[in-house]
Amino acid sequence: MMRMNLKFLILFLCITLVFVTFSVWIRCGGEITPFPKAYKGETIISKSQGLALTENSGLEEIDCHINGEYTVSCRREADEVYIPFSFIHKYFEIYGKLAKYDDTERFEWSHSYSKVYYPKGKYDPKGVFLYFENYNVELRERVKCISGTEGVPISTQWEVQGYYYPTQIAQFGLSHYSKNLTEPEPRFKIIEDGSAHRANWSGIVVRENGVVKFSSQAGGIITLNLDHVLDFIMSVDLQLSYKDNSSLVVVLQNREKFETWIIHYSCQAPMIFSQDAEVYYKINCEEGEWTHLTRDLLVDLQKGLSIQNKPKKKFSRSKYKVTKIILEGQGKLDNLTMATSRHLDQFYAAANWLVHHQDPATGGWLNIVRRRWGPPGMKDLLPGWLSAMGQGHGISVLARAYHTSRDPIYLKAGLEALRPFHTLSENGGVLAKFFGGYPWYEEYPTQPSSFVLNGFIYSLIGLYDLLTLAPKENRNEAKVLFEQGMESLKKLLTLYDSGSGSFYDLRHLSLGSAPNVARWDYHATHVNQLLLLATIDNSTIISSTASRWIRYMSGKRAPHN
Amino acid sequence: MMRMNLKFLILFLCITLVFVTFSVWIRCGGEITPFPKAYKGETIISKSQGLALTENSGLEEIDCHINGEYTVSCRREADEVYIPFSFIHKYFEIYGKLAKYDDTERFEWSHSYSKVYYPKGKYDPKGVFLYFENYNVELRERVKCISGTEGVPISTQWEVQGYYYPTQIAQFGLSHYSKNLTEPEPRFKIIEDGSAHRANWSGIVVRENGVVKFSSQAGGIITLNLDHVLDFIMSVDLQLSYKDNSSLVVVLQNREKFETWIIHYSCQAPMIFSQDAEVYYKINCEEGEWTHLTRDLLVDLQKGLSIQNKPKKKFSRSKYKVTKIILEGQGKLDNLTMATSRHLDQFYAAANWLVHHQDPATGGWLNIVRRRWGPPGMKDLLPGWLSAMGQGHGISVLARAYHTSRDPIYLKAGLEALRPFHTLSENGGVLAKFFGGYPWYEEYPTQPSSFVLNGFIYSLIGLYDLLTLAPKENRNEAKVLFEQGMESLKKLLTLYDSGSGSFYDLRHLSLGSAPNVARWDYHATHVNQLLLLATIDNSTIISSTASRWIRYMSGKRAPHN
Repeated sequence: MMRMNLKFLILFLCITLVFVTFSVWIRCGGEITPFPKAYKGETIISKSQGLALTENSGLEEIDCHINGEYTVSCRREADEVYIPFSFIHKYFEIYGKLAKYDDTERFEWSHSYSKVYYPKGKYDPKGVFLYFENYNVELRERVKCISGTEGVPISTQWEVQGYYYPTQIAQFGLSHYSKNLTEPEPRFKIIEDGSAHRANWSGIVVRENGVVKFSSQAGGIITLNLDHVLDFIMSVDLQLSYKDNSSLVVVLQNREKFETWIIHYSCQAPMIFSQDAEVYYKINCEEGEWTHLTRDLLVDLQKGLSIQNKPKKKFSRSKYKVTKIILEGQGKLDNLTMATSRHLDQFYAAANWLVHHQDPATGGWLNIVRRRWGPPGMKDLLPGWLSAMGQGHGISVLARAYHTSRDPIYLKAGLEALRPFHTLSENGGVLAKFFGGYPWYEEYPTQPSSFVLNGFIYSLIGLYDLLTLAPKENRNEAKVLFEQGMESLKKLLTLYDSGSGSFYDLRHLSLGSAPNVARWDYHATHVNQLLLLATIDNSTIISSTASRWIRYMSGKRAPHN
Repeated sequence: MMRMNLKFLILFLCITLVFVTFSVWIRCGGEITPFPKAYKGETIISKSQGLALTENSGLEEIDCHINGEYTVSCRREADEVYIPFSFIHKYFEIYGKLAKYDDTERFEWSHSYSKVYYPKGKYDPKGVFLYFENYNVELRERVKCISGTEGVPISTQWEVQGYYYPTQIAQFGLSHYSKNLTEPEPRFKIIEDGSAHRANWSGIVVRENGVVKFSSQAGGIITLNLDHVLDFIMSVDLQLSYKDNSSLVVVLQNREKFETWIIHYSCQAPMIFSQDAEVYYKINCEEGEWTHLTRDLLVDLQKGLSIQNKPKKKFSRSKYKVTKIILEGQGKLDNLTMATSRHLDQFYAAANWLVHHQDPATGGWLNIVRRRWGPPGMKDLLPGWLSAMGQGHGISVLARAYHTSRDPIYLKAGLEALRPFHTLSENGGVLAKFFGGYPWYEEYPTQPSSFVLNGFIYSLIGLYDLLTLAPKENRNEAKVLFEQGMESLKKLLTLYDSGSGSFYDLRHLSLGSAPNVARWDYHATHVNQLLLLATIDNSTIISSTASRWIRYMSGKRAPHN
């Protein structure tokens, strides 16, 4: 009897085991039956017994056939089909990332990647220029370096050997003007001024009339040891002898790796040259003339390394210090200072470049490079072309320089810069006319017209800056140009509305091509520009378009019929 | 010994059972551990043993945070996040459905829902009009009925009581013209012609001069029993006495449910009236005048039921039969025929309506309803407005009617219909000028201009039909209008390109509003129209735009910068 019971027990256990194993096999065999859905709180017993539950309630692989063209592996759970984000990302250019908050992970879906800057009040041409306080023009990859002779950036955007690009120079100026208003007061340390502040030079220097005279031939190696961190904006007045190839040399050290870098500011160097640990910048050395030099030492180092194609690591300013200054050749020095910033110096470097490089024949800042166009049908711009954006940005700089300095030279240059706004692109100016009517100031004065939106609005802001900051008797020309431009903008603005974003230009109209959709950062620029204009012009079209374009950035679209 | 073995066996089985059960519980407990992925061919044993596999290789719930605004429940499997299609559908308006092929299910993702018709050869105005052979204008919901007096549709699109809408009437004509060319030859059955074919009427009828004379007062109830299926296009010549409120009555039966429906074609009925199982249509009863009636009996029944708001079931033509024709009052009858189709009758009904209802003052077909516009800023069109699309469609009908009949009355009306193309919208015509220049023929001659694309192209096709089918000496006016219109189209076409679809009109330019994006069926209409134009005009812009717009339908977009 006992043995019979045991046998029955064994038999029962075997059958149960087979049954459970089989049911698991059925439920987990990916090829045969899809996964059943797990119900909250359900026990395994009821699931194992309820084989019928597996029907249609699980998560399984299913092919998604995309527009009859190709297949993507999806997942299915009851009535819902799940699409892999990697596909969505490519198909719609949507961005996503996993993020963790307090141990909870979530997936963050972003329709766009750019930032909207909401103005805090009415736009004031005396204040910051849009949100340019956030710009670091000099650190852009397409900036080769900051010229040692002019103190302004040299661009490689359309020619690799580098050239002065007026638009970029003006942006450099505007960003420093804006930073000057938004950043904390700089910290200064005067190192040598030939009178009150006297540095401990190793060689022989002579202090005379409040300046330092030196000659390395006569005085030996003239060195100043420093242990200076964080404040890397060096400024100095120099009068160096060209024929001796005089130099001011700065030695920098990486505080962690103890690597040493040497920057030479030299009379006879090429514009920029770099080899191994040495970087050379040409500076002005005119006989008997003082030159004022303001240099961001770490930018100068970084640019020097990057023309050697050294691997670009994250460049952390806190890891460096200035260990030495060396004077070579002979000359005079004054006001050697280290500071956290010298934004107005950099701003005026841009303003002065604009004053000194304005073409007297046209009032324009010539772009001395050929500007090639991708799309067939649009003619290249030949060296010497003008840009309404360059003119407008230049005017924004000059209007501010006039405002802060009251020096009429800046006002005069700003007013001169209006001339190309009256001349048609085909005649060397920047003026296009939409269907022969509405005037449009062309960032690129192409044939046929390209009607770039952001460049046009920048030019309007330049005009507004001038009409606001110029003395009353000088305002009219900019005012007329601004007002007729605003009229064009309000008339044509919605032509740039794609229903889900914005167009960068109207090349599709000019060339009969596909439209050139603005990538999100240009779209955000459009929005930010419109938000600025909405503070000085109360037309509904400006503010309503801005609002709609902001909505586009989170996936809302214009209605369809 | 044996009992020990048995005990061990039982113990072993119990442990195994507990282990398997536990592992299943672990794997299936949705709250504790997500589902592991099923690997092809893997056995349950290795999965049960490999509990660690559940780590990171399973499918788990994860929140997707959408643009920082709201949350959607997604799934995660290793590095991939899966997004529910129900969300994608709403967010992007993408379509999807499960489909089964040979026991394999797949999910079919459709970016758009409309069809492209590729032309088989060069467009021939003597042939089908685009793909209108697929249209069933009379079955559209916004068609109240086919008028019994005119044989053309009555629209409720912009006024519920119904009105003659020239554009719709022309589309009705063009669809029947096209069906006549594409459908098989119709089958006819002559039921009564007063001579060779004599029907077996129940009352007294008199055959005289090849027609049937009847009087229900004199001859009793005059009935003809039929058992007629499938061929529901009745045509008949009638001369009915108005003062006796004479009628021809058709009795239909549902072959499954044996429901009976009665359609009265009566002299004194309202245009359409319906109650219970009875439907009434007014027909022409002018003293001593023959009227030719061609009726789609099932359309007449369907429209009668729908004005009673009877629940709309799927209306299957094969379920009906004609059981009786009754003659009431007095009059004459000839050529009573049942046929599968009478497309040319219906086409000529439209052509004749256009001839008889052309406004002699303008050459236009007046739209006698107010056309309201949603967007603020666009003025309503007041009753009496003309439409370039209506004119163009009308011309397409008339050019074909002239071609098939050689009757100069159609040619004359077609040529007259050109007049509104020369008159600005603001002066009662259909002509707009884009920025004062390029002419545009307006489907809706709004103030400000709306520049509807599809209506403009339809008007161009009408002009092309006329310039092709008119005698040489009459072609020039249409030719000039066509050519200048094509020039405008080629210049402005890409303004309708949204980068991912097309715009229906340019209201965003006229009103400074959001663009009115074309829903996919209008987008497909644009594409189909361009494909047609590309067969008669070899400008790249026509064909390249069509190709690009086709690509948009499967999710390809214009490039961004």
